[in-house]
Amino acid sequence: MKSVSLSLLVLAAAAALPAAAANKNTADLKQPLVLAAQGSFFVGGESKTIPAATPNGASGDVTVNQMYVQFQTPANAGRHLPVVMVHGCCLSSKTWETTPDGRMGWNEYFVRKGRPVYLADQSSRARSGFDASIINAVKAGTAPTAQLPNVLFASHQIAWVVFRFGPAFNQPFSDGQFPVEAADELYKQMIPDLNSTLPSPNPTWANMAALAVKLHGAVLMGHSESGFFPEQAALSDPAGIKGMISIEMPCPATLTDAQISSLAKIPTMVMFGDHLGDVHGGPANWADSFDGCQKFVQRVTAAGGDAEMVHLPAMGIHGNSHMLMQDRNNLQLADLILDWIDAHVEGKKVSARK
Amino acid sequence: MKSVSLSLLVLAAAAALPAAAANKNTADLKQPLVLAAQGSFFVGGESKTIPAATPNGASGDVTVNQMYVQFQTPANAGRHLPVVMVHGCCLSSKTWETTPDGRMGWNEYFVRKGRPVYLADQSSRARSGFDASIINAVKAGTAPTAQLPNVLFASHQIAWVVFRFGPAFNQPFSDGQFPVEAADELYKQMIPDLNSTLPSPNPTWANMAALAVKLHGAVLMGHSESGFFPEQAALSDPAGIKGMISIEMPCPATLTDAQISSLAKIPTMVMFGDHLGDVHGGPANWADSFDGCQKFVQRVTAAGGDAEMVHLPAMGIHGNSHMLMQDRNNLQLADLILDWIDAHVEGKKVSARK
Repeated sequence: MKSVSLSLLVLAAAAALPAAAANKNTADLKQPLVLAAQGSFFVGGESKTIPAATPNGASGDVTVNQMYVQFQTPANAGRHLPVVMVHGCCLSSKTWETTPDGRMGWNEYFVRKGRPVYLADQSSRARSGFDASIINAVKAGTAPTAQLPNVLFASHQIAWVVFRFGPAFNQPFSDGQFPVEAADELYKQMIPDLNSTLPSPNPTWANMAALAVKLHGAVLMGHSESGFFPEQAALSDPAGIKGMISIEMPCPATLTDAQISSLAKIPTMVMFGDHLGDVHGGPANWADSFDGCQKFVQRVTAAGGDAEMVHLPAMGIHGNSHMLMQDRNNLQLADLILDWIDAHVEGKKVSARK
Repeated sequence: MKSVSLSLLVLAAAAALPAAAANKNTADLKQPLVLAAQGSFFVGGESKTIPAATPNGASGDVTVNQMYVQFQTPANAGRHLPVVMVHGCCLSSKTWETTPDGRMGWNEYFVRKGRPVYLADQSSRARSGFDASIINAVKAGTAPTAQLPNVLFASHQIAWVVFRFGPAFNQPFSDGQFPVEAADELYKQMIPDLNSTLPSPNPTWANMAALAVKLHGAVLMGHSESGFFPEQAALSDPAGIKGMISIEMPCPATLTDAQISSLAKIPTMVMFGDHLGDVHGGPANWADSFDGCQKFVQRVTAAGGDAEMVHLPAMGIHGNSHMLMQDRNNLQLADLILDWIDAHVEGKKVSARK
């Protein structure tokens, strides 16, 4: 079992790590960050003509379905593939940045570990914008109220339980890794989710696939709502996708054998945190999601693929919430992912060259 | 007249600049970018209780009116004040980043010139989120359709004229500085503006003032819709605001003498581009805005303030659009602003210390 072998590797590494080395690593993170390049751009997007009847001078053409991407390339990149990070429901790329309690996020940590990092706001979210024309049409009386989008947003109460900070609102798990003292800062990251305004299939999938092609190869990472987006992107166009990291999401049971065979060509890591069965009453059922993803990993493995379920408690890492990239041990988890990329995505490339 | 003296200074400097120095400057911009720190956080935000009648499990408390801020501090900062950049209508902080045709934006250029830079998404825009509860309430039938927000978004056709790329859609000015070949990339930046969902006064104003206090002093910069936000922030709380840069906006004629006296305590630069009277038919009248801001500058000057109107064509700099931070000569304009900060904001501090 791969998860066990990885687990033993990590435990052995942790045991062997002298305190001085751990301190040095922390000190390194305070050194200046040296970037070869940074910037932002869009992937995708189509023109749409808005009828003249809507108010605010908005008649004419607008661009919709584009995906905003912000990137940083470290000065010491070169041999490492870019990593594309895509956030979940009711969130933006802020997910991957400075944690609610002010620690370094995965975006900067991955850059400091030599990876070009691309943060994408999902199409219809945050800096990607959204198609607001139906809201104005309803206000103008040219479309029925029923056509208004279902705008998803999670209350503080829902977030606390669904994100598994504890069993009930404002009650933390005793071993919880999320910095609950900074929960108010997490709530500020939670923004309206307008994915219901998107056409089907979700344009973010093709945009992620196109981004991987544009980068001449990339590892795609998704979380929660977007956890299976790397796989959806690969089903759209696998050409640029060199690895897939899927964090805490439902895995569809409806995939065909042909789809599984296609996905089995790309190394896949699935990661779940702790307390999956210990929260109740929210819209998510994490225990069911975990079971479904176990089955997905088994199907991919049976099809000859390199797929791994990383269940953190099974590795002796306890207390991780759904927002594990913001948990107190977030850099330990980042190291697991970096090691997995090295071994399963980039290691294979090296051995193939021999 | 300050604008004339600055104009002569710039022309003299341009004449004196050898070609080798100009090339060196461009080459410097390709050197690695060295950051002492970077990250993101929120300013402001209040809890709001959403009635249980709305759909999507959104009953409970949500946070609204917060302002998302992304920052970078150069390794060579120290003596320079932070610069806070706030975007205009139907745009996000993308405004200040990589230009539509892929050149360096003001955000990175200012960092490379030793300034800590803070990019803020206006409250109710992009990564700051917005209060969507009224949309769901109308959809659920618990609020009337008339309460839907007016969602502002500009069509390609409107943007071309209002942003002064040319006199009519797809017709550029012959001396235009905007990279019109990349207009499609600009259109992707244009996102729905939900400021109509905000309470009054606009929370972004107090959030900008609070950010300046948090930074122990900052220069605030606004553009278009947010062009007068630095002044509105100063009228809310001037404590942290050391300089104000207002780019292409209407200036209110209704300010009291007491308000003018208050604003006169902070150095102010107002900047306008070219072709102000050469576009017609959009919602903006740039010639009127310019006249109104001339009067504002005169009132502040008469009250003993240090206010300057930088009208680029009057300085021999022609063809600048409304999106002048993305124009081909955007770094030349950035240098004007940097020089103004040095002389009018930071220079004064130095002489005051003597």
